[in-house]
Amino acid sequence: MVDIATRVYNHTWKIDPIVRSVLDTDFYKLLMAQTIFRRHRDVQVTFGIQNRTTRIRLAEIIDMGELREQLDHVRSLSLTRGESTWLRGNTFYGKRQMFSPEFMDWLETFRFPEYLLEKEDGQYVLTFHGPWIETTMWEIPALAILNELRSRGVLKGMGKFELQVLYARAMTRVWEKIQQLKALPDLSVTDFGTRRRHGFLWQDWCVQAMIEGLGPAFLGTSNCLIAMRREVEAVGTNAHELPMVYTALTDNDQDMAMAPYRVLADWQSDYEGNLRIILPDTYGTTNFLSNAPSWVAAWTGIRVDSKDPIEGGEEAIAWWLERGQNPKDKLAIFSDGLDVDVIKRIHQHFLGRMRIGYGWGTLLTNDFRGFAPDGALDPISIVCKVISANGRPTVKLSDNPTKALGPKAEIERYKRVFNVGVQNAKPVLV
Amino acid sequence: MVDIATRVYNHTWKIDPIVRSVLDTDFYKLLMAQTIFRRHRDVQVTFGIQNRTTRIRLAEIIDMGELREQLDHVRSLSLTRGESTWLRGNTFYGKRQMFSPEFMDWLETFRFPEYLLEKEDGQYVLTFHGPWIETTMWEIPALAILNELRSRGVLKGMGKFELQVLYARAMTRVWEKIQQLKALPDLSVTDFGTRRRHGFLWQDWCVQAMIEGLGPAFLGTSNCLIAMRREVEAVGTNAHELPMVYTALTDNDQDMAMAPYRVLADWQSDYEGNLRIILPDTYGTTNFLSNAPSWVAAWTGIRVDSKDPIEGGEEAIAWWLERGQNPKDKLAIFSDGLDVDVIKRIHQHFLGRMRIGYGWGTLLTNDFRGFAPDGALDPISIVCKVISANGRPTVKLSDNPTKALGPKAEIERYKRVFNVGVQNAKPVLV
Repeated sequence: MVDIATRVYNHTWKIDPIVRSVLDTDFYKLLMAQTIFRRHRDVQVTFGIQNRTTRIRLAEIIDMGELREQLDHVRSLSLTRGESTWLRGNTFYGKRQMFSPEFMDWLETFRFPEYLLEKEDGQYVLTFHGPWIETTMWEIPALAILNELRSRGVLKGMGKFELQVLYARAMTRVWEKIQQLKALPDLSVTDFGTRRRHGFLWQDWCVQAMIEGLGPAFLGTSNCLIAMRREVEAVGTNAHELPMVYTALTDNDQDMAMAPYRVLADWQSDYEGNLRIILPDTYGTTNFLSNAPSWVAAWTGIRVDSKDPIEGGEEAIAWWLERGQNPKDKLAIFSDGLDVDVIKRIHQHFLGRMRIGYGWGTLLTNDFRGFAPDGALDPISIVCKVISANGRPTVKLSDNPTKALGPKAEIERYKRVFNVGVQNAKPVLV
Repeated sequence: MVDIATRVYNHTWKIDPIVRSVLDTDFYKLLMAQTIFRRHRDVQVTFGIQNRTTRIRLAEIIDMGELREQLDHVRSLSLTRGESTWLRGNTFYGKRQMFSPEFMDWLETFRFPEYLLEKEDGQYVLTFHGPWIETTMWEIPALAILNELRSRGVLKGMGKFELQVLYARAMTRVWEKIQQLKALPDLSVTDFGTRRRHGFLWQDWCVQAMIEGLGPAFLGTSNCLIAMRREVEAVGTNAHELPMVYTALTDNDQDMAMAPYRVLADWQSDYEGNLRIILPDTYGTTNFLSNAPSWVAAWTGIRVDSKDPIEGGEEAIAWWLERGQNPKDKLAIFSDGLDVDVIKRIHQHFLGRMRIGYGWGTLLTNDFRGFAPDGALDPISIVCKVISANGRPTVKLSDNPTKALGPKAEIERYKRVFNVGVQNAKPVLV
């Protein structure tokens, strides 16, 4: 029997919103927002979209009016009562009341700020100016919208069965990956795929498939909304925007060189345990580790995000040993362009030598490679990064110069200050 | 929103019936039933199930109580008003009123007769005794029930996502076959997969996928219920049971040798055009064609069902030429163990030399090969055949001795009467 009320209700939709909740974002955004809320409420920041896969001309695939409708819909969202209750009452990383009542009060009144949308050379120039604490919230929804509108554009005009088979193929592919992962001992995988997902429903499917297929080897998802609905852990720690803004705001080379460690100092006064994961690669991992204050080595772990994973993991182990730490007590989280073969390789190499976690993103929630002609559904490498802070340009070097961000002159200055030597460029797949 | 009424209604189901309509059967059963109705209402016939895939011990997989429930449910069915209207008003093979008012009156009051169910050596012995016109109706529902109960037995205990991925794989496989077939010029394919289907919903999916994927190259389905619901052609002609019964009822060798042609004589007084398709292999194709009366060559086409398709097609072409017919006006229907590779081979060989049609059965609606451990979902070669008529054993030789049916002594007598020489055994896949 048809549920007439649902059908009629659906008739009244103006759009099919992609992001329908403030919580349809990554958990680390909320952790970082709380740190920003406590210390940097006055910092003005600009975030901007960058599509590194320039062959995909998003402005020719996605209608500007539809993009505006989706972004405007996000601006109409606010935290619901149940969502607030969940954030206030749920256990995150084994701890209750992760978010302070003051931060929760702020989050309940939060509305997404304005955006600026233009076209340039076949790409959208989408920027967010305003208080850091507000603009930072745009990163994930903006990316999710662009990725899903692109998918919708490609899927438009496909037949009902053609579509069903497309998803059948995608399901089979994810399931086969899960079956392969299942065979790995002591596995711990999380979904990091919100920003690059093919679509919300698809990410939700992937998470549920991992729950059934991996059991306890599936640790949870970075997506707060899905974590809440599927009753799994919400996971994530922090991102490059913290050291990027902290560093941009310094006035001399010495302060600048210390800024990334001040991020960690603030972070460890806010968070403990498994949330104390160093992200060392913003201005080069090697010098970051060698110059790190002694207390940094006591942190729980490290995230390897732009270096070759074997190299990055070995570097972490060597550093822990050098600092008198037992690597077996430490946690390395790998999160860069992961897929089953990479995970297997890392696992084989490091299993038993340290604790390992995988933040599996794009190739979990958007591996539609080869499912449409001309790679039209292949994932793209699109990011939403902080561009400036209080009017000063921000810079990211990373361990892979292909991922560097910022004005050229600034990049050179940063390389000098952080003493970054020659870096090997790796192609960025996703 | 949940449709509460539907959910509550579903609670009250005693079973989930596999066959829910008198029309969930093959169209040729109705055509043959009408011929039987007009001429042989007093003939008593026994049909019986034979599972040629003896390694699959059906009686150990399927619960006898559940099998009884399903068979009993079929016995509760009668033609609905809408179904009767469709049979009376629809065009079949370009003709209205294919079924006479007298036959339709009978069909409206028809109920499935009793069955006998026993176990023997891990298999079910399922037989139907009674008037031919009634027992003949059991063939398709009995096979569909056995096949689907077997599928259900294997699928029991699988997880929700495991199941979804299983069907995702099956959909992808069928769709890829359809894409391959789509590339063949002048293709004409029909679904002949009711009896061996994985399940009703799955057959229905396959038909819809062919409608979308093949367009006009998909001619229709042998399943009356699906043809009615999906508004496509219902297709099929006749089967071996006609010559088998006609022959068994003869009293001397001469009458016996002529019996298969009497079938055709009766058939052509009932049906015309594309329904005049010779099924020559019941007692060997070669002698059937060489001894055929001249009017048989005027029939529209031939069905190649147990001979190697290339050999069988060539034999038909040679015979038509010998009988002064133009093969290009003739139709050959291939229906034995077809799959994409066989269809391609046949098409490549015969395209342009005669009209070609494909009756694609088991490997369309039940190609779950390799989807469960130990081939537990691989299709089996199960048939429901007439065993005796008015107390006399019936015999089928076919062109492939692996497919021969009947008591050994009778098979020898039939070989003598029909002058069948040495036959090459081919393995029966499905």
